[in-house]
Amino acid sequence: MGRPRTPLIDRARITTAALELVDAKGEFSVVQIARKLGVQTGSLYHHVDGRDGIVELLRERVCEAIDASMFDASPWDAALAAWARSYRAAFAAHPRAIPLLMASPVRAPRVLEHYERAVGLLLDAGFALADVMRVIIALENLILGSALDLAAPEPMWELGDDQRDTPRLALALAAAPLGRADAAFELALGACLEGFRALVD
Amino acid sequence: MGRPRTPLIDRARITTAALELVDAKGEFSVVQIARKLGVQTGSLYHHVDGRDGIVELLRERVCEAIDASMFDASPWDAALAAWARSYRAAFAAHPRAIPLLMASPVRAPRVLEHYERAVGLLLDAGFALADVMRVIIALENLILGSALDLAAPEPMWELGDDQRDTPRLALALAAAPLGRADAAFELALGACLEGFRALVD
Repeated sequence: MGRPRTPLIDRARITTAALELVDAKGEFSVVQIARKLGVQTGSLYHHVDGRDGIVELLRERVCEAIDASMFDASPWDAALAAWARSYRAAFAAHPRAIPLLMASPVRAPRVLEHYERAVGLLLDAGFALADVMRVIIALENLILGSALDLAAPEPMWELGDDQRDTPRLALALAAAPLGRADAAFELALGACLEGFRALVD
Repeated sequence: MGRPRTPLIDRARITTAALELVDAKGEFSVVQIARKLGVQTGSLYHHVDGRDGIVELLRERVCEAIDASMFDASPWDAALAAWARSYRAAFAAHPRAIPLLMASPVRAPRVLEHYERAVGLLLDAGFALADVMRVIIALENLILGSALDLAAPEPMWELGDDQRDTPRLALALAAAPLGRADAAFELALGACLEGFRALVD
Protein backbone atom coordinates (compact mmCIF):
# COMPACT_ATOMS: atom_id res chain seq x y z
CA MET A 1 0.00 0.00 0.00
CA GLY A 2 1.32 3.39 -0.97
CA ARG A 3 4.41 1.93 -2.51
CA PRO A 4 4.21 1.75 -6.31
CA ARG A 5 4.51 -1.75 -7.74
CA THR A 6 6.53 -0.51 -10.68
CA PRO A 7 9.41 1.91 -10.30
CA LEU A 8 8.57 5.53 -11.11
CA ILE A 9 11.23 5.61 -13.78
CA ASP A 10 12.90 3.18 -16.08
CA ARG A 11 14.66 3.56 -19.40
CA ALA A 12 11.47 3.18 -21.42
CA ARG A 13 9.71 5.97 -19.50
CA ILE A 14 12.72 8.23 -19.70
CA THR A 15 12.83 7.65 -23.47
CA THR A 16 9.11 8.37 -23.83
CA ALA A 17 9.42 11.60 -21.84
CA ALA A 18 12.46 12.71 -23.86
CA LEU A 19 10.70 11.96 -27.15
CA GLU A 20 7.63 13.94 -26.07
CA LEU A 21 9.85 16.90 -25.27
CA VAL A 22 11.68 16.63 -28.61
CA ASP A 23 8.41 16.30 -30.53
CA ALA A 24 7.10 19.44 -28.83
CA LYS A 25 10.20 21.61 -28.58
CA GLY A 26 12.89 20.07 -30.79
CA GLU A 27 15.11 19.61 -27.74
CA PHE A 28 15.22 18.05 -24.26
CA SER A 29 17.22 18.41 -21.10
CA VAL A 30 17.75 15.93 -18.29
CA VAL A 31 16.18 18.44 -15.87
CA GLN A 32 13.04 18.72 -18.03
CA ILE A 33 12.69 14.93 -18.19
CA ALA A 34 13.02 14.66 -14.40
CA ARG A 35 10.38 17.36 -13.91
CA LYS A 36 8.05 15.63 -16.37
CA LEU A 37 8.42 12.31 -14.55
CA GLY A 38 8.22 13.90 -11.10
CA VAL A 39 11.58 12.62 -9.92
CA GLN A 40 14.90 14.12 -8.86
CA THR A 41 17.34 14.82 -11.69
CA GLY A 42 20.02 12.82 -9.93
CA SER A 43 17.94 9.66 -9.88
CA LEU A 44 17.72 9.68 -13.69
CA TYR A 45 21.45 9.07 -13.83
CA HIS A 46 20.98 5.67 -12.17
CA HIS A 47 19.13 4.57 -15.30
CA VAL A 48 20.79 6.27 -18.23
CA ASP A 49 24.29 7.24 -19.30
CA GLY A 50 23.74 11.00 -19.21
CA ARG A 51 22.40 13.13 -22.00
CA ASP A 52 24.30 11.21 -24.70
CA GLY A 53 22.80 7.98 -23.41
CA ILE A 54 19.30 9.45 -23.72
CA VAL A 55 20.01 10.54 -27.30
CA GLU A 56 20.91 6.93 -28.13
CA LEU A 57 17.73 5.69 -26.44
CA LEU A 58 15.79 8.15 -28.62
CA ARG A 59 17.58 6.84 -31.69
CA GLU A 60 16.68 3.26 -30.80
CA ARG A 61 13.07 4.22 -30.13
CA VAL A 62 12.58 6.05 -33.43
CA CYS A 63 14.38 3.32 -35.39
CA GLU A 64 12.29 0.57 -33.79
CA ALA A 65 9.56 1.50 -36.29
CA ILE A 66 11.84 0.73 -39.25
CA ASP A 67 11.06 -2.68 -40.69
CA ALA A 68 14.50 -4.31 -40.85
CA SER A 69 13.06 -7.53 -42.28
CA MET A 70 13.23 -5.62 -45.58
CA PHE A 71 16.93 -6.47 -45.71
CA ASP A 72 16.04 -10.08 -46.41
CA ALA A 73 14.07 -9.18 -49.54
CA SER A 74 15.55 -9.47 -52.98
CA PRO A 75 16.76 -8.18 -55.32
CA TRP A 76 18.94 -5.71 -53.42
CA ASP A 77 17.35 -2.61 -54.97
CA ALA A 78 13.84 -3.68 -53.98
CA ALA A 79 15.12 -4.36 -50.45
CA LEU A 80 16.80 -0.96 -50.29
CA ALA A 81 13.66 0.80 -51.58
CA ALA A 82 11.46 -0.95 -49.01
CA TRP A 83 13.90 -0.06 -46.24
CA ALA A 84 13.98 3.56 -47.43
CA ARG A 85 10.16 3.83 -47.36
CA SER A 86 9.93 2.35 -43.89
CA TYR A 87 12.81 4.53 -42.66
CA ARG A 88 11.14 7.69 -44.03
CA ALA A 89 7.85 6.85 -42.31
CA ALA A 90 9.57 6.20 -38.96
CA PHE A 91 11.33 9.58 -38.99
CA ALA A 92 8.40 11.52 -40.44
CA ALA A 93 6.56 10.62 -37.20
CA HIS A 94 9.27 12.51 -35.26
CA PRO A 95 10.64 15.19 -37.61
CA ARG A 96 12.11 17.31 -34.83
CA ALA A 97 14.24 14.39 -33.68
CA ILE A 98 16.05 14.38 -37.04
CA PRO A 99 18.54 17.25 -36.49
CA LEU A 100 19.06 16.14 -32.89
CA LEU A 101 19.95 12.59 -33.92
CA MET A 102 22.07 13.74 -36.86
CA ALA A 103 24.11 15.96 -34.55
CA SER A 104 25.64 13.12 -32.56
CA PRO A 105 27.35 9.88 -33.59
CA VAL A 106 25.43 6.61 -33.78
CA ARG A 107 26.35 4.39 -30.83
CA ALA A 108 23.15 2.46 -30.08
CA PRO A 109 23.89 -1.24 -30.71
CA ARG A 110 20.49 -1.99 -32.19
CA VAL A 111 20.85 0.87 -34.66
CA LEU A 112 24.40 -0.12 -35.56
CA GLU A 113 22.99 -3.56 -36.33
CA HIS A 114 20.69 -1.92 -38.93
CA TYR A 115 23.74 -0.45 -40.63
CA GLU A 116 25.52 -3.80 -40.44
CA ARG A 117 22.63 -5.36 -42.36
CA ALA A 118 22.52 -2.53 -44.92
CA VAL A 119 26.27 -2.89 -45.51
CA GLY A 120 25.87 -6.66 -45.87
CA LEU A 121 23.06 -6.23 -48.39
CA LEU A 122 25.19 -3.95 -50.57
CA LEU A 123 28.36 -6.05 -50.32
CA ASP A 124 26.40 -9.18 -51.24
CA ALA A 125 24.95 -7.24 -54.21
CA GLY A 126 28.47 -6.62 -55.48
CA PHE A 127 29.14 -3.04 -54.37
CA ALA A 128 32.80 -2.17 -53.81
CA LEU A 129 33.70 -1.83 -50.14
CA ALA A 130 34.79 1.79 -50.68
CA ASP A 131 31.39 2.67 -52.19
CA VAL A 132 29.13 1.18 -49.54
CA MET A 133 28.99 4.02 -47.00
CA ARG A 134 28.63 6.60 -49.76
CA VAL A 135 25.56 4.78 -51.08
CA ILE A 136 24.00 4.39 -47.63
CA ILE A 137 24.62 8.03 -46.67
CA ALA A 138 23.31 9.33 -50.01
CA LEU A 139 20.11 7.36 -49.49
CA GLU A 140 19.79 8.44 -45.85
CA ASN A 141 20.14 12.11 -46.77
CA LEU A 142 17.29 11.75 -49.23
CA ILE A 143 15.21 9.79 -46.70
CA LEU A 144 15.67 12.30 -43.87
CA GLY A 145 15.04 15.35 -46.05
CA SER A 146 11.94 13.62 -47.39
CA ALA A 147 10.79 12.72 -43.88
CA LEU A 148 10.92 16.41 -42.95
CA ASP A 149 8.96 17.21 -46.12
CA LEU A 150 6.35 14.57 -45.30
CA ALA A 151 5.79 16.34 -41.98
CA ALA A 152 5.65 19.79 -43.63
CA PRO A 153 2.45 21.78 -44.04
CA GLU A 154 0.20 21.50 -47.06
CA PRO A 155 0.34 23.87 -48.91
CA MET A 156 4.03 24.61 -48.42
CA TRP A 157 3.95 27.81 -50.51
CA GLU A 158 1.62 30.71 -49.78
CA LEU A 159 1.72 33.25 -52.56
CA GLY A 160 -0.62 35.81 -51.07
CA ASP A 161 -3.15 37.76 -53.07
CA ASP A 162 -0.72 39.38 -55.45
CA GLN A 163 0.88 36.75 -57.62
CA ARG A 164 2.30 39.12 -60.21
CA ASP A 165 5.84 38.47 -58.99
CA THR A 166 5.49 34.69 -59.12
CA PRO A 167 3.28 33.84 -62.10
CA ARG A 168 4.99 30.63 -63.15
CA LEU A 169 5.30 29.38 -59.57
CA ALA A 170 1.55 29.92 -59.22
CA LEU A 171 0.92 27.85 -62.35
CA ALA A 172 3.31 25.08 -61.26
CA LEU A 173 1.69 24.86 -57.81
CA ALA A 174 -1.78 24.71 -59.33
CA ALA A 175 -0.68 21.97 -61.74
CA ALA A 176 1.12 19.82 -59.14
CA PRO A 177 -0.83 16.65 -58.37
CA LEU A 178 -1.90 15.89 -54.80
CA GLY A 179 0.51 13.92 -52.65
CA ARG A 180 3.53 16.04 -53.54
CA ALA A 181 5.67 14.60 -50.73
CA ASP A 182 5.23 11.00 -51.87
CA ALA A 183 5.64 11.86 -55.55
CA ALA A 184 8.86 13.80 -54.90
CA PHE A 185 10.28 11.07 -52.67
CA GLU A 186 9.54 8.30 -55.17
CA LEU A 187 11.04 10.33 -58.03
CA ALA A 188 14.30 10.88 -56.15
CA LEU A 189 14.35 7.34 -54.73
CA GLY A 190 13.97 5.82 -58.20
CA ALA A 191 16.68 8.09 -59.56
CA CYS A 192 19.08 7.26 -56.72
CA LEU A 193 18.55 3.51 -57.10
CA GLU A 194 19.23 3.83 -60.81
CA GLY A 195 22.40 5.76 -60.01
CA PHE A 196 23.49 3.13 -57.47
CA ARG A 197 22.83 0.36 -60.01
CA ALA A 198 25.39 1.97 -62.30
CA LEU A 199 28.01 1.33 -59.59
CA VAL A 200 27.55 -2.45 -59.75
CA ASP A 201 26.49 -3.11 -63.35
CA MET B 1 23.56 62.49 -25.61
CA GLY B 2 22.17 59.45 -23.95
CA ARG B 3 19.80 58.81 -26.79
CA PRO B 4 21.03 56.13 -29.18
CA ARG B 5 21.47 57.28 -32.77
CA THR B 6 20.20 54.01 -34.13
CA PRO B 7 17.11 52.34 -32.76
CA LEU B 8 17.78 49.51 -30.31
CA ILE B 9 15.89 47.13 -32.51
CA ASP B 10 15.12 46.74 -36.16
CA ARG B 11 14.21 43.79 -38.32
CA ALA B 12 17.83 42.88 -39.04
CA ARG B 13 18.71 42.76 -35.34
CA ILE B 14 15.61 40.77 -34.50
CA THR B 15 16.50 38.30 -37.25
CA THR B 16 20.08 37.98 -36.01
CA ALA B 17 18.92 37.36 -32.45
CA ALA B 18 16.37 34.77 -33.59
CA LEU B 19 18.96 32.97 -35.71
CA GLU B 20 21.43 32.86 -32.82
CA LEU B 21 18.74 31.29 -30.64
CA VAL B 22 17.83 28.75 -33.34
CA ASP B 23 21.50 27.88 -33.95
CA ALA B 24 21.99 27.30 -30.22
CA LYS B 25 18.70 25.70 -29.19
CA GLY B 26 16.84 24.73 -32.35
CA GLU B 27 13.99 27.08 -31.39
CA PHE B 28 13.20 30.68 -30.50
CA SER B 29 10.45 32.61 -28.78
CA VAL B 30 9.53 36.27 -29.06
CA VAL B 31 10.16 36.64 -25.31
CA GLN B 32 13.68 35.21 -25.66
CA ILE B 33 14.48 37.58 -28.51
CA ALA B 34 13.26 40.57 -26.50
CA ARG B 35 15.38 39.50 -23.53
CA LYS B 36 18.43 39.03 -25.75
CA LEU B 37 17.99 42.52 -27.23
CA GLY B 38 17.15 44.12 -23.89
CA VAL B 39 13.76 45.43 -24.98
CA GLN B 40 10.15 44.88 -24.00
CA THR B 41 8.41 42.01 -25.80
CA GLY B 42 5.64 44.34 -26.90
CA SER B 43 7.98 46.64 -28.76
CA LEU B 44 9.14 43.78 -31.01
CA TYR B 45 5.65 43.63 -32.46
CA HIS B 46 6.08 47.12 -33.91
CA HIS B 47 8.77 45.70 -36.19
CA VAL B 48 7.68 42.19 -37.09
CA ASP B 49 4.49 40.35 -37.87
CA GLY B 50 4.59 38.08 -34.82
CA ARG B 51 6.30 34.73 -34.58
CA ASP B 52 5.37 33.71 -38.14
CA GLY B 53 6.86 36.94 -39.43
CA ILE B 54 10.13 36.19 -37.65
CA VAL B 55 10.20 32.70 -39.18
CA GLU B 56 9.97 34.30 -42.63
CA LEU B 57 12.75 36.75 -41.74
CA LEU B 58 14.88 33.76 -40.75
CA ARG B 59 14.06 32.07 -44.04
CA GLU B 60 15.13 35.15 -45.97
CA ARG B 61 18.32 35.47 -43.95
CA VAL B 62 19.40 31.85 -44.46
CA CYS B 63 18.45 31.92 -48.15
CA GLU B 64 20.40 35.15 -48.74
CA ALA B 65 23.52 32.98 -48.88
CA ILE B 66 22.16 30.99 -51.83
CA ASP B 67 23.65 32.19 -55.08
CA ALA B 68 20.57 32.72 -57.25
CA SER B 69 22.68 33.89 -60.20
CA MET B 70 23.09 30.15 -60.81
CA PHE B 71 19.68 30.18 -62.44
CA ASP B 72 21.12 32.08 -65.37
CA ALA B 73 23.69 29.38 -66.10
CA SER B 74 23.11 26.82 -68.79
CA PRO B 75 22.38 24.07 -69.53
CA TRP B 76 19.55 23.65 -67.03
CA ASP B 77 21.09 20.66 -65.27
CA ALA B 78 24.35 22.51 -64.62
CA ALA B 79 22.34 25.46 -63.30
CA LEU B 80 20.30 23.18 -61.05
CA ALA B 81 23.43 21.44 -59.75
CA ALA B 82 25.12 24.77 -58.95
CA TRP B 83 21.97 26.00 -57.20
CA ALA B 84 21.79 22.74 -55.21
CA ARG B 85 25.40 23.05 -54.03
CA SER B 86 24.95 26.67 -52.97
CA TYR B 87 21.62 25.83 -51.27
CA ARG B 88 23.20 22.96 -49.33
CA ALA B 89 26.05 25.19 -48.10
CA ALA B 90 23.63 27.93 -46.97
CA PHE B 91 21.56 25.52 -44.88
CA ALA B 92 24.52 23.52 -43.59
CA ALA B 93 25.59 26.75 -41.83
CA HIS B 94 22.28 26.67 -39.89
CA PRO B 95 21.24 23.01 -39.66
CA ARG B 96 18.90 23.58 -36.73
CA ALA B 97 16.90 26.07 -38.74
CA ILE B 98 15.98 23.33 -41.23
CA PRO B 99 13.14 21.61 -39.34
CA LEU B 100 11.86 24.97 -38.13
CA LEU B 101 11.67 26.39 -41.66
CA MET B 102 10.22 23.19 -43.10
CA ALA B 103 7.44 23.25 -40.52
CA SER B 104 5.80 26.42 -41.83
CA PRO B 105 4.78 27.55 -45.31
CA VAL B 106 7.06 29.73 -47.42
CA ARG B 107 5.69 33.30 -47.52
CA ALA B 108 8.81 35.48 -47.73
CA PRO B 109 8.70 37.31 -51.08
CA ARG B 110 12.43 37.06 -51.71
CA VAL B 111 12.35 33.31 -51.15
CA LEU B 112 9.26 32.86 -53.31
CA GLU B 113 11.22 34.66 -56.02
CA HIS B 114 13.87 31.91 -55.80
CA TYR B 115 11.18 29.35 -56.49
CA GLU B 116 9.81 31.44 -59.34
CA ARG B 117 13.22 31.34 -60.98
CA ALA B 118 13.65 27.60 -60.37
CA VAL B 119 10.22 26.95 -61.92
CA GLY B 120 11.12 29.16 -64.89
CA LEU B 121 14.41 27.31 -65.41
CA LEU B 122 12.63 23.96 -65.55
CA LEU B 123 9.76 25.13 -67.75
CA ASP B 124 12.23 26.67 -70.18
CA ALA B 125 14.13 23.36 -70.19
CA GLY B 126 10.97 21.60 -71.36
CA PHE B 127 9.65 20.03 -68.15
CA ALA B 128 5.90 19.47 -68.05
CA LEU B 129 4.09 21.92 -65.77
CA ALA B 130 2.76 19.04 -63.64
CA ASP B 131 6.30 17.72 -63.06
CA VAL B 132 7.99 20.95 -62.02
CA MET B 133 7.18 21.05 -58.29
CA ARG B 134 7.91 17.33 -57.95
CA VAL B 135 11.39 17.87 -59.37
CA ILE B 136 12.08 20.90 -57.17
CA ILE B 137 10.84 19.20 -54.01
CA ALA B 138 12.76 15.99 -54.74
CA LEU B 139 15.95 18.02 -55.11
CA GLU B 140 15.24 20.10 -52.00
CA ASN B 141 14.70 17.00 -49.89
CA LEU B 142 18.09 15.70 -50.95
CA ILE B 143 19.69 19.12 -50.38
CA LEU B 144 18.28 19.59 -46.88
CA GLY B 145 19.06 16.04 -45.75
CA SER B 146 22.57 16.49 -47.12
CA ALA B 147 22.92 19.86 -45.37
CA LEU B 148 22.14 18.15 -42.06
CA ASP B 149 24.70 15.48 -42.90
CA LEU B 150 27.33 18.09 -43.74
CA ALA B 151 26.86 19.51 -40.25
CA ALA B 152 26.99 16.07 -38.62
CA PRO B 153 29.95 14.85 -36.56
CA GLU B 154 32.88 13.00 -38.07
CA PRO B 155 32.96 10.06 -37.43
CA MET B 156 29.18 9.51 -37.49
CA TRP B 157 29.40 5.88 -36.33
CA GLU B 158 31.12 4.82 -33.14
CA LEU B 159 31.43 1.06 -32.95
CA GLY B 160 33.03 0.79 -29.53
CA ASP B 161 35.76 -1.69 -28.68
CA ASP B 162 33.82 -4.81 -29.49
CA GLN B 163 33.10 -4.92 -33.20
CA ARG B 164 32.08 -8.57 -33.32
CA ASP B 165 28.45 -7.64 -33.97
CA THR B 166 29.25 -5.23 -36.80
CA PRO B 167 32.22 -6.70 -38.71
CA ARG B 168 31.17 -5.59 -42.20
CA LEU B 169 30.14 -2.10 -41.04
CA ALA B 170 33.61 -1.77 -39.48
CA LEU B 171 35.22 -2.73 -42.81
CA ALA B 172 32.98 -0.37 -44.82
CA LEU B 173 33.72 2.55 -42.48
CA ALA B 174 37.45 1.90 -42.67
CA ALA B 175 37.30 1.72 -46.48
CA ALA B 176 35.17 4.87 -46.95
CA PRO B 177 37.21 7.75 -48.38
CA LEU B 178 37.48 11.04 -46.51
CA GLY B 179 34.83 13.65 -47.27
CA ARG B 180 31.90 11.27 -46.95
CA ALA B 181 29.31 14.06 -46.87
CA ASP B 182 30.44 15.59 -50.16
CA ALA B 183 30.84 12.21 -51.85
CA ALA B 184 27.37 11.08 -50.79
CA PHE B 185 25.76 14.36 -51.85
CA GLU B 186 27.41 14.35 -55.27
CA LEU B 187 26.45 10.72 -55.86
CA ALA B 188 22.78 11.40 -55.10
CA LEU B 189 22.78 14.75 -56.91
CA GLY B 190 24.19 13.18 -60.06
CA ALA B 191 21.65 10.36 -59.86
CA CYS B 192 18.74 12.76 -59.35
CA LEU B 193 19.76 14.97 -62.28
CA GLU B 194 19.99 11.88 -64.47
CA GLY B 195 16.53 10.87 -63.30
CA PHE B 196 15.15 14.36 -64.00
CA ARG B 197 16.73 14.32 -67.48
CA ALA B 198 14.64 11.25 -68.30
CA LEU B 199 11.52 13.40 -67.78
CA VAL B 200 12.44 15.78 -70.60
CA ASP B 201 14.38 13.56 -73.03
